Amino acid sequence: MSIKEDVRNMKAVAPYLAASSVETRNQALSRIADTLREHSEEIFQANKQDMDLAEQTGISAAVMKRLKFDPGKLEDVTAGIEQLIGLPDPVGKVSLARELDEGLTLYRVSCPIGVIGVIFEARPDALVQISSLCIKSGNCAVLKGGKETAHTNRVLFRLIYDSAVKAGLPEGCLLQAEQHSEIDELLECHGSVDLLIPRGSNRFVQYIMDHTKIPVMGHADGLCHIYVDRDADLQKAIPVIVDAKTQYTAACNAVETLLVHREIAGDFLPELACALRAEGVKLRGTKEVTDIIQAETIEEKDFREYLDLILSVKLVDNVEEAIAHINRFGSHHTDSILTENRGTAERFMQLVDSAGVYQNCSTRFADGFRYGFGAEVGISTGKIHARGPVGLEGLVTYKYKLFGDGHIVGDYAKGRRSFHFRDIE
Amino acid sequence: MSIKEDVRNMKAVAPYLAASSVETRNQALSRIADTLREHSEEIFQANKQDMDLAEQTGISAAVMKRLKFDPGKLEDVTAGIEQLIGLPDPVGKVSLARELDEGLTLYRVSCPIGVIGVIFEARPDALVQISSLCIKSGNCAVLKGGKETAHTNRVLFRLIYDSAVKAGLPEGCLLQAEQHSEIDELLECHGSVDLLIPRGSNRFVQYIMDHTKIPVMGHADGLCHIYVDRDADLQKAIPVIVDAKTQYTAACNAVETLLVHREIAGDFLPELACALRAEGVKLRGTKEVTDIIQAETIEEKDFREYLDLILSVKLVDNVEEAIAHINRFGSHHTDSILTENRGTAERFMQLVDSAGVYQNCSTRFADGFRYGFGAEVGISTGKIHARGPVGLEGLVTYKYKLFGDGHIVGDYAKGRRSFHFRDIE
Repeated sequence: MSIKEDVRNMKAVAPYLAASSVETRNQALSRIADTLREHSEEIFQANKQDMDLAEQTGISAAVMKRLKFDPGKLEDVTAGIEQLIGLPDPVGKVSLARELDEGLTLYRVSCPIGVIGVIFEARPDALVQISSLCIKSGNCAVLKGGKETAHTNRVLFRLIYDSAVKAGLPEGCLLQAEQHSEIDELLECHGSVDLLIPRGSNRFVQYIMDHTKIPVMGHADGLCHIYVDRDADLQKAIPVIVDAKTQYTAACNAVETLLVHREIAGDFLPELACALRAEGVKLRGTKEVTDIIQAETIEEKDFREYLDLILSVKLVDNVEEAIAHINRFGSHHTDSILTENRGTAERFMQLVDSAGVYQNCSTRFADGFRYGFGAEVGISTGKIHARGPVGLEGLVTYKYKLFGDGHIVGDYAKGRRSFHFRDIE
Repeated sequence: MSIKEDVRNMKAVAPYLAASSVETRNQALSRIADTLREHSEEIFQANKQDMDLAEQTGISAAVMKRLKFDPGKLEDVTAGIEQLIGLPDPVGKVSLARELDEGLTLYRVSCPIGVIGVIFEARPDALVQISSLCIKSGNCAVLKGGKETAHTNRVLFRLIYDSAVKAGLPEGCLLQAEQHSEIDELLECHGSVDLLIPRGSNRFVQYIMDHTKIPVMGHADGLCHIYVDRDADLQKAIPVIVDAKTQYTAACNAVETLLVHREIAGDFLPELACALRAEGVKLRGTKEVTDIIQAETIEEKDFREYLDLILSVKLVDNVEEAIAHINRFGSHHTDSILTENRGTAERFMQLVDSAGVYQNCSTRFADGFRYGFGAEVGISTGKIHARGPVGLEGLVTYKYKLFGDGHIVGDYAKGRRSFHFRDIE
């Protein structure tokens, strides 16, 4: 049986999952957390198989760390599920209630998107987080994880799915795709899948966007900036930049380019360079920068997303130039200004066209957990539908419900009746 | 100069328009309304040129009606602008305010999408409505109207653009594309254009979706249903169905398929057929239907969007069968149930996966003006970002603003600090 048939079936199931009560969805989540804990040994054994295979193929230590599913990660994901259970239901929220005319009342009510396909990297905890978010938000999900954790994913998925169905969610509400070829099949399911969320490398996300008619929510890159303003507190600035660059270099919210106000560069850059070098960061900069500190000279057009202990540096005349650089070369992900001047900060935050605009803090805060969303299915650098870390609210849409009593448009067109548009409190 | 350069320039202008005050944007709208009234003769003359040319090419009367821009239409569009001025600013609304930790505060604030490309049919009033909506919502817009109203559009655009700039909006914030070839150029501007809104035939909208990497908000068809339940008030039902079919047959929210509960079909269909025939509506139906009333027998798979005085009819056993039919064959636009049974209505409105789900009223109510949005840029049958009639709220997105005081992620990762997630009232 092809995945296309399963997904078509899922489309028919989706309205019933969407109609399930939040109590049933929370019970499913609770049962999932319990089941994962009860079957921890089975999960760890499957994960050992994946780790052994990965070791044989010589995967890097950094990736190995992501593949691993140990008691600490189990605790994290089950704690995440408990947190999700405590969050309010994102479904059924009324965002507009308006009497259009006597007896004709309009409501805009949030509802699940329907069928969501998520293609994610080899991280077993991601499978748990994504399926929990989809269940809480009432969405059917097709899950395709990285092949390096196939054994772990298979066990996790079975435990999650069985628990969900036992708790009363409809059969067929979750589906696991295990073959790489199924990704291309999934991309063709534009009649059944409402949204695709690809996670992974830029190239991969771009491939997905280029090969499907299904709307895609993903980020194609994360080229984050920090601008050190003339009015920055330089002692506050250094730890923020070090954190943004080194706390987790492989993350999309790590800083990649530093813009420094020309007037403070002479004092600030040597001290910063010293702090960054102590953390193993290599600096690259324009000619002006390398006249001040020792660094590799590169041109502005060669600044890029390194995902490594490398930072590009450039001088600017003022906040306007910093804004223009970021809007032109950035990826609209997260950009931070370091300044004690509230007016300058507000101008920066107003004019920088990014999902996250920060003052005096590290770009690494761009994350669903740190925003208090419980978890995230990804970080969107698109502007349509959801922007930044995407939690439950990004997984719902809305429908308009209109209640009448035989109302017809002809009466309004001919002036026999007229609308009075009275919002209901 | 190619339109691509203009659009790239617009991308740089967009943050400045986004930062403009609502007072400036409202002044621009007010000035536009005044200017259009002052220059009405010039507009009508240009429109006469278009009408004369159209007549020579033998365009149908229905289309001619859309091309026409007369004192009545001028009054409608200027009244629409006044209504828009009165609506609250959609920009700068705070939808989340949360202290993550002491001194670290997150806000989610609505902001314009940026640069929007709208490709619309030959209707001069649409040009005015769309540009007004974009100005009020702080978005730059590239406008491409149908070629049959080229003269009218040119005059209208000049008056609108000049008024906007004179009122203080940035130069280059609106752009008119006049050549058909410019549509294909626009489709390639995925670095500059944030959203495309195509209006027109299904084939045209599908063409746009298939030929661009820019997110598209459009509807590919409008196959709306009315389901007449066993518990319907049949005397209420007939005028609703007649209105939904005949009030404006070319509209996407006109009803195309009628589903009738089997138990009432024998009584109801003959009376309905009589009322519809009196309005010139031709009926088509499945074998079961044509056993009851005189109509062309067709198969369910041949039901389609007619945009004409034709209605498909089918019998169903119950509301569940109606829901399944609509979710499978409908276009997720607007579907209505006629019933006095609130429980049945709620089940229908819960499970039908459409932008608009109605009880006891005509599908023709699906419209931005009738919902009280002032106007609409289109009706979305997609589920992502905006659904149903799209007014000001569909033209904004949001950004996250995070204010800190030297906060770094490392402190939280190492347990030196922890988040307390306190929502600010």
